[in-house]
Amino acid sequence: MDERLKQQLAFALEIDKEKNIFRQTHLSGHGRNENDAEHAWHMAVMAYLLREYANEEVDIARVLIMCLIHDIVEIDAGDTYAYDAENLKTQKEREDKAKERIFSLLPEDQKKEFTALFDEFEAYETPESRYAHALDNLQPLLLNTSNDGGDWREHGVTSSTVYGRQSKTALGSEKLFEYTDKILQEQIRLGHLKDDGKEKEQ
Amino acid sequence: MDERLKQQLAFALEIDKEKNIFRQTHLSGHGRNENDAEHAWHMAVMAYLLREYANEEVDIARVLIMCLIHDIVEIDAGDTYAYDAENLKTQKEREDKAKERIFSLLPEDQKKEFTALFDEFEAYETPESRYAHALDNLQPLLLNTSNDGGDWREHGVTSSTVYGRQSKTALGSEKLFEYTDKILQEQIRLGHLKDDGKEKEQ
Repeated sequence: MDERLKQQLAFALEIDKEKNIFRQTHLSGHGRNENDAEHAWHMAVMAYLLREYANEEVDIARVLIMCLIHDIVEIDAGDTYAYDAENLKTQKEREDKAKERIFSLLPEDQKKEFTALFDEFEAYETPESRYAHALDNLQPLLLNTSNDGGDWREHGVTSSTVYGRQSKTALGSEKLFEYTDKILQEQIRLGHLKDDGKEKEQ
Repeated sequence: MDERLKQQLAFALEIDKEKNIFRQTHLSGHGRNENDAEHAWHMAVMAYLLREYANEEVDIARVLIMCLIHDIVEIDAGDTYAYDAENLKTQKEREDKAKERIFSLLPEDQKKEFTALFDEFEAYETPESRYAHALDNLQPLLLNTSNDGGDWREHGVTSSTVYGRQSKTALGSEKLFEYTDKILQEQIRLGHLKDDGKEKEQ
């Protein structure tokens, strides 16, 4: 087998491990914890489904591949819960190391391409990355609200922290943030999310 | 919330169930059975990674979304093992019913769009669907060969049946079939796959 294909397939086999990285989000129907591969799949389908709501015109192929690969670094770095302030401090360092190791399995041109896609997602600077982030927020919100906000209660997360993250959805999709805001207000009203305001971490 | 977005999100929540549909393939490292959402994710990343080997030029966004949604019908119809001759007979009827129910959750225009993408994948008639099928074959082959062909032995599958399916990879990618052929010959040589020829079901 030629060296290039061999490297590509070594990478393809390595990323299988993403299916063993579990998140704090639970599947609908009060199911088990979700893993990163499932999350990336779900978020990508939703990105395609809801693309009419992106604030700006997006190259949907770039959005999809960004959604699909954005958590590969967690194979080494582990999942960092969106509302875990302590581990969020070391997240970038852990993920940078992982990015270097895992993408180095690829041929040099594809290492550059995948690294650039990963960095683009993280940087929040292009229409595609801002829209992809909106789905990274909306997908777990959809599952968690279907489970009466159990993930928030398990971690003692309150509304200001949730708004701190979810309000960035508006950068990628004002329409999807408008919906998010309605849902969060309803979850507060139902007693599923403890209300300490919208403003603290925005 | 407006009716259109409500329908789209009902569909988004429904497809979460795909994470509970388990396949015969096992994760690498002799892991647990893989589920459909993980398979679709893995196959889509591989489709992007290996797109240079498609026989014809492909619209990669169409390939990716086809990969991502091609197993949604299995939420109702269940997984049909690629080498299970008995259940393969009823597969189309079961999947047609599922397709109608699940895609009917969507707004009418998107029901048509998703149904068309699903049908396009099944029909093997466009460059995108032929290439997507190559990955539907290669992804489980990658996992199964990393596990010494355990899935074949568990089901008493022999080389003519495996070639019967895998040889269609050449329709989407001659290069990836050339690799597949090498791998299958190696698996036969290692005693992981019982040899009864290449030709019977081609």
